[in-house]
Amino acid sequence: MSKKLTYGMVGGGPGAFIGDAHRKAIAVDGSARLVAGCFSRTPEKSKAQGEALGLDPDRCYTNYREMAEAESKRPDGIDFVVVVTPNVTHYEICRAFLEAGIHVSCDKPLATDSARCAELKQLAEEKGLLFMVTYTYTGHVTAKYIRDLVRSGEIGTVRTVMAEYPQGWLYNEKDCGGKQGAWRCDPAQSGRVNCLGDIGSHVENAVATLTGLKIKRLLAKMDVVVPGRKLDDNDQILVEYEGGATGIYWSCQFAIGCDNSLRVRIYGSKGTILWDQEHCEEVTLIGEDGVPRIIRRGYGAVTPAAARYGRLPAGHTEGWIEAMGNLYDSFTDCVAAKKDGTFTESMIDYPTADAGLEGLRFVEACLESNDKGNVWVNL
Amino acid sequence: MSKKLTYGMVGGGPGAFIGDAHRKAIAVDGSARLVAGCFSRTPEKSKAQGEALGLDPDRCYTNYREMAEAESKRPDGIDFVVVVTPNVTHYEICRAFLEAGIHVSCDKPLATDSARCAELKQLAEEKGLLFMVTYTYTGHVTAKYIRDLVRSGEIGTVRTVMAEYPQGWLYNEKDCGGKQGAWRCDPAQSGRVNCLGDIGSHVENAVATLTGLKIKRLLAKMDVVVPGRKLDDNDQILVEYEGGATGIYWSCQFAIGCDNSLRVRIYGSKGTILWDQEHCEEVTLIGEDGVPRIIRRGYGAVTPAAARYGRLPAGHTEGWIEAMGNLYDSFTDCVAAKKDGTFTESMIDYPTADAGLEGLRFVEACLESNDKGNVWVNL
Amino acid sequence: MSKKLTYGMVGGGPGAFIGDAHRKAIAVDGSARLVAGCFSRTPEKSKAQGEALGLDPDRCYTNYREMAEAESKRPDGIDFVVVVTPNVTHYEICRAFLEAGIHVSCDKPLATDSARCAELKQLAEEKGLLFMVTYTYTGHVTAKYIRDLVRSGEIGTVRTVMAEYPQGWLYNEKDCGGKQGAWRCDPAQSGRVNCLGDIGSHVENAVATLTGLKIKRLLAKMDVVVPGRKLDDNDQILVEYEGGATGIYWSCQFAIGCDNSLRVRIYGSKGTILWDQEHCEEVTLIGEDGVPRIIRRGYGAVTPAAARYGRLPAGHTEGWIEAMGNLYDSFTDCVAAKKDGTFTESMIDYPTADAGLEGLRFVEACLESNDKGNVWVNL
Amino acid sequence: MSKKLTYGMVGGGPGAFIGDAHRKAIAVDGSARLVAGCFSRTPEKSKAQGEALGLDPDRCYTNYREMAEAESKRPDGIDFVVVVTPNVTHYEICRAFLEAGIHVSCDKPLATDSARCAELKQLAEEKGLLFMVTYTYTGHVTAKYIRDLVRSGEIGTVRTVMAEYPQGWLYNEKDCGGKQGAWRCDPAQSGRVNCLGDIGSHVENAVATLTGLKIKRLLAKMDVVVPGRKLDDNDQILVEYEGGATGIYWSCQFAIGCDNSLRVRIYGSKGTILWDQEHCEEVTLIGEDGVPRIIRRGYGAVTPAAARYGRLPAGHTEGWIEAMGNLYDSFTDCVAAKKDGTFTESMIDYPTADAGLEGLRFVEACLESNDKGNVWVNL
Repeated sequence: MSKKLTYGMVGGGPGAFIGDAHRKAIAVDGSARLVAGCFSRTPEKSKAQGEALGLDPDRCYTNYREMAEAESKRPDGIDFVVVVTPNVTHYEICRAFLEAGIHVSCDKPLATDSARCAELKQLAEEKGLLFMVTYTYTGHVTAKYIRDLVRSGEIGTVRTVMAEYPQGWLYNEKDCGGKQGAWRCDPAQSGRVNCLGDIGSHVENAVATLTGLKIKRLLAKMDVVVPGRKLDDNDQILVEYEGGATGIYWSCQFAIGCDNSLRVRIYGSKGTILWDQEHCEEVTLIGEDGVPRIIRRGYGAVTPAAARYGRLPAGHTEGWIEAMGNLYDSFTDCVAAKKDGTFTESMIDYPTADAGLEGLRFVEACLESNDKGNVWVNL
Repeated sequence: MSKKLTYGMVGGGPGAFIGDAHRKAIAVDGSARLVAGCFSRTPEKSKAQGEALGLDPDRCYTNYREMAEAESKRPDGIDFVVVVTPNVTHYEICRAFLEAGIHVSCDKPLATDSARCAELKQLAEEKGLLFMVTYTYTGHVTAKYIRDLVRSGEIGTVRTVMAEYPQGWLYNEKDCGGKQGAWRCDPAQSGRVNCLGDIGSHVENAVATLTGLKIKRLLAKMDVVVPGRKLDDNDQILVEYEGGATGIYWSCQFAIGCDNSLRVRIYGSKGTILWDQEHCEEVTLIGEDGVPRIIRRGYGAVTPAAARYGRLPAGHTEGWIEAMGNLYDSFTDCVAAKKDGTFTESMIDYPTADAGLEGLRFVEACLESNDKGNVWVNL
Repeated sequence: MSKKLTYGMVGGGPGAFIGDAHRKAIAVDGSARLVAGCFSRTPEKSKAQGEALGLDPDRCYTNYREMAEAESKRPDGIDFVVVVTPNVTHYEICRAFLEAGIHVSCDKPLATDSARCAELKQLAEEKGLLFMVTYTYTGHVTAKYIRDLVRSGEIGTVRTVMAEYPQGWLYNEKDCGGKQGAWRCDPAQSGRVNCLGDIGSHVENAVATLTGLKIKRLLAKMDVVVPGRKLDDNDQILVEYEGGATGIYWSCQFAIGCDNSLRVRIYGSKGTILWDQEHCEEVTLIGEDGVPRIIRRGYGAVTPAAARYGRLPAGHTEGWIEAMGNLYDSFTDCVAAKKDGTFTESMIDYPTADAGLEGLRFVEACLESNDKGNVWVNL
Repeated sequence: MSKKLTYGMVGGGPGAFIGDAHRKAIAVDGSARLVAGCFSRTPEKSKAQGEALGLDPDRCYTNYREMAEAESKRPDGIDFVVVVTPNVTHYEICRAFLEAGIHVSCDKPLATDSARCAELKQLAEEKGLLFMVTYTYTGHVTAKYIRDLVRSGEIGTVRTVMAEYPQGWLYNEKDCGGKQGAWRCDPAQSGRVNCLGDIGSHVENAVATLTGLKIKRLLAKMDVVVPGRKLDDNDQILVEYEGGATGIYWSCQFAIGCDNSLRVRIYGSKGTILWDQEHCEEVTLIGEDGVPRIIRRGYGAVTPAAARYGRLPAGHTEGWIEAMGNLYDSFTDCVAAKKDGTFTESMIDYPTADAGLEGLRFVEACLESNDKGNVWVNL
């Protein structure tokens, strides 16, 4: 709690999975204290949720614009806001808080298209505000370690990348995955994209973060496979990066037996790195002798820039909440530094609006490629 | 935060690993709010730590007896205390808070011998107080699921158990594992036992919890292996349970490559269960067809009594902090129920003083067996 | 040895890996006895190798045409020939033996192009001769079991397939993999294709065998990645099957840490099957409950049509030689049945010229797609 | 076939698993050619089996003494005999062939007690004959590699060993494992020991071979667990080696889900080695950094003395038959060297009568310890 920061939340009412997850991720390290919220448009619901969370009823809002304005005027106003509402509302809400001069952490996607996202990014920059997009998986210590390994040249030049994110929960044509599945599969709520936006974008972000590679062009095939679905549930993408490396990305929602299998394999001229977020405590690193070495969070081999996020000794497992906590650890460090005037850009160790923008451009390029019959599209 | 409970902590000053871990485990679910503490005997240190944690300076104590007394008299006094001091002090501190009428959660061991532990247990019972000992590993959802599987007869009658807890961090004769290792290897601080008390007792608790078996007699060999050590660092124990099943327990601190490898294998007349706390998200269940089935936290197969502790969907990993959080989840449910008069014994789903007492009796029996030349000792 | 068959070999001189492998695969089960060979064009070398193998010097030839003619005229002539020479010579040699009325087993590819392969296939049919192409990997008991699982509808309708075959041995730009690598990377000996023909064709065969799916069209990207190479060493292929299922095939020769990682994942409407030839003793089968079940060769669950090839109880591992032995087991059953007049087509349980032809057509379609800029090509 | 050796077999009639396995293991490398056999006491059966195996009817015997005498007198008599009869007959048969001056390979145990085994050992030495006992598992390339690693000091001084061999096939009280189980569980055929002799002795041999450690004393608990059984099916043994290292051995026949899980873990002062014969193609080697490195047969890291037995590149799996083949590879090298006068003791790289004798002494010591109530017994 030593950073003494406070935050507010928009969204995250009772039963909302992702809002609760953000609260846990912030609470586990005491990165900030929740003091305000707009949990629902219904006054009773918002107040009830706020009370359950120990908030002052005066700071339980029903309108995010009102909240942004009120909090920006309080001497003890929130230091940042967490936006965990349905995707289609992200743009307007982020905009309101940025305009009110409040730092923002928002779930992906930051907007429904790249133009709006670029607008938000510019707004944050103009206002000198911090703007995080919570790509949780790259918060893992092991993800940060891999980033350092690749940067340091440990595996030489990256030659090819195999990345995938299969899930199985939407395999059943008779059951569209309950509440969580319903909005994802509904064009009215998800626009033109389901699987690729939901999980394919994590593949893009993971590869970009771990390898530092920039996509030059891609060729995408987005299929609607499960009978009755209207949006993509299986995406196959060939990628070429600047510099000549290549990749294959695969995301799928009907792969029975896959829970949340974000997996990245990076093949370089001098070595290979394997990473599987479901086994997020370990990295497999293979050198020219072909011998896999399994390095776990907490080992001496892990780079200090990654290791600093670990809480527990190796073998005392950390997981998904801790990964998101790591994002908030760096984000709140930056917020605190903004407050006391010690902030520098180099402190940023979380995904920013740049990552959010890249993700949206990636999705748009895939749609274009698919629409044109699976042809190459430049980014 | 809906339970609206508050707690105090004894121990857990700056740099104290286990105190911080307990705070995180309570914070992640908002099970209670830290409002008081005796973090150090030095006033400045205790206040500084309290301030960093956002506490009222008036409730930062330097003497645990004073704290117990003061808090018991406040109208808004703590609902429970968390004791995370060096082992040799547990007995006196727990006693002080129990006598003051305050529920207690204490790290293992509850005392340095079973007689004192029994005394504490009796005291808690007489006072009608809750008394938890934080055997973290059995807090995992998968541990609770296994308990339910065995109870339900899924694997028939248990025939034999293989349980082990090797670690490697104390392998080096030139380095006794820093501050954490120093006190463990020092007879002045640890008494007659190192490895067996530190991790062997987790083996005992895990098997007891998962299988429900009671040890009838045991034969122990406790060796001091690494040159220069004075206390056991390798423990091999043959066990016979009431009813005739048998087991082997092994704990070790010099097993290079083992981080925290608590592992239990349960062989029954109709099936087998495998559990590895380092892969705490999964259970391997094998039936008479010999086919391993890997069931993960979050799957439909997990029993409701275990599944209720899960926070995230399968594939979004939970870990050690969440396991301890699960203990506090049940413990604070019980504390809250005590407050509003709805408590019943059947609500208890965490390790109590009974488990703490069994652990100490186990260690004492092992010492006796070893002293007598590895002979059978009845429990 | 009860089939009492004899065979001859063309190729397989001293130091020739694949010839020795075929001999071992035939010997392990005593499927046939080697009695003739054309091991080298140099008389001394062929005789020396024949003598080392215990052959009559009269049946050690230096010219395969002479061998085909001589053996076809002997009353005790060979029952079949095994062709294990460099790829470019397969067509002529197979043709010579087929014309001489001798059954043929030949390493893949049967010819350098599909037209010549089709010609051989027709010739064998006209002559009523058996013609096996030794795709070793689909000889594993587990491969045959998967084929049966898919056919029986165990996983419903196949929706998508992920198949890959990465190797790492040609990663080094300074070392082209010795003698084995040299001819593969040399356009003069390998024609227009390296990686795709060498291992990508095994991916095609494995998926076709395991799933029964027919490729309708494909889109291929064949890259030359390691500096200094002239032929493809990384192949990425999008596949559409008749009936609408899709797949991704990847083959690579510079994937450090991969030895021989032929792996197929089959996602159906009711379940998933995972297979990895490096762990060829097991199949992972996942049903709608999402729970992986690991079924090993030798278990009761394995279908009789697959299990019959097993030699040892589960846990007594069988490997690559045994997989090839399984091909020869069925092939020699058929040869013996041809001799005694009991042969029927339904006895064939090994890859025939049909599979060889499909493989060559697959490679040719990939080349066409790649030449045209990664466009869809119908098969 | 270049060694040009011939052998005869006693036992191994139709349906006999182990006889067939030996024949395959010899045939796969052409280490020797089967030319004589005493497959049954019934003349028709022995001849029929001999004929199926392509033998001269004159060399199909029905009496092993007659065979030993006849073969020893033939100018082209067998170079060695393979004894694969029921255990209780090993002693007499081995003795007959040794007396006839014929080298012997015999399945374990060489005799039913250590005195008789010592007698055979002495006889072989006096006659200058080779005498192999086929402990198959230590024939794996990886086992030989581990032996070299330990000898070279790679993991420092061995401190403790965890070794086990659980199987599950005899778990069912209603089914004693068919023909294979029936004799093992029958005191009339197996004497006083079942599980320990059958698989526990492999544990002893594996540890002795891999580590070179000699047992100084042991404490054994041998339980009869499955209802209705008369002989041990669960064996727990504490071991102390000369030099002070310790170990735990466990063997079990009712561990559902275990096929043939011989597993050895060796913990040294500088590193750890893990080996699992069901994954016999790999060794896990861990150094002081705690990082597991997985080294597979065929890798550059494997020592030449182990690697020389490999037949195929890494990733082309070898298994149990190949492991036994490795024993015969060295044994027949020695037989051939005996014939041409080039033999030296240092050529022996297979388990000899010494290993057989150690195994029997180990079993006898366990029985004594168990009979006396689980006390320490010196070896």
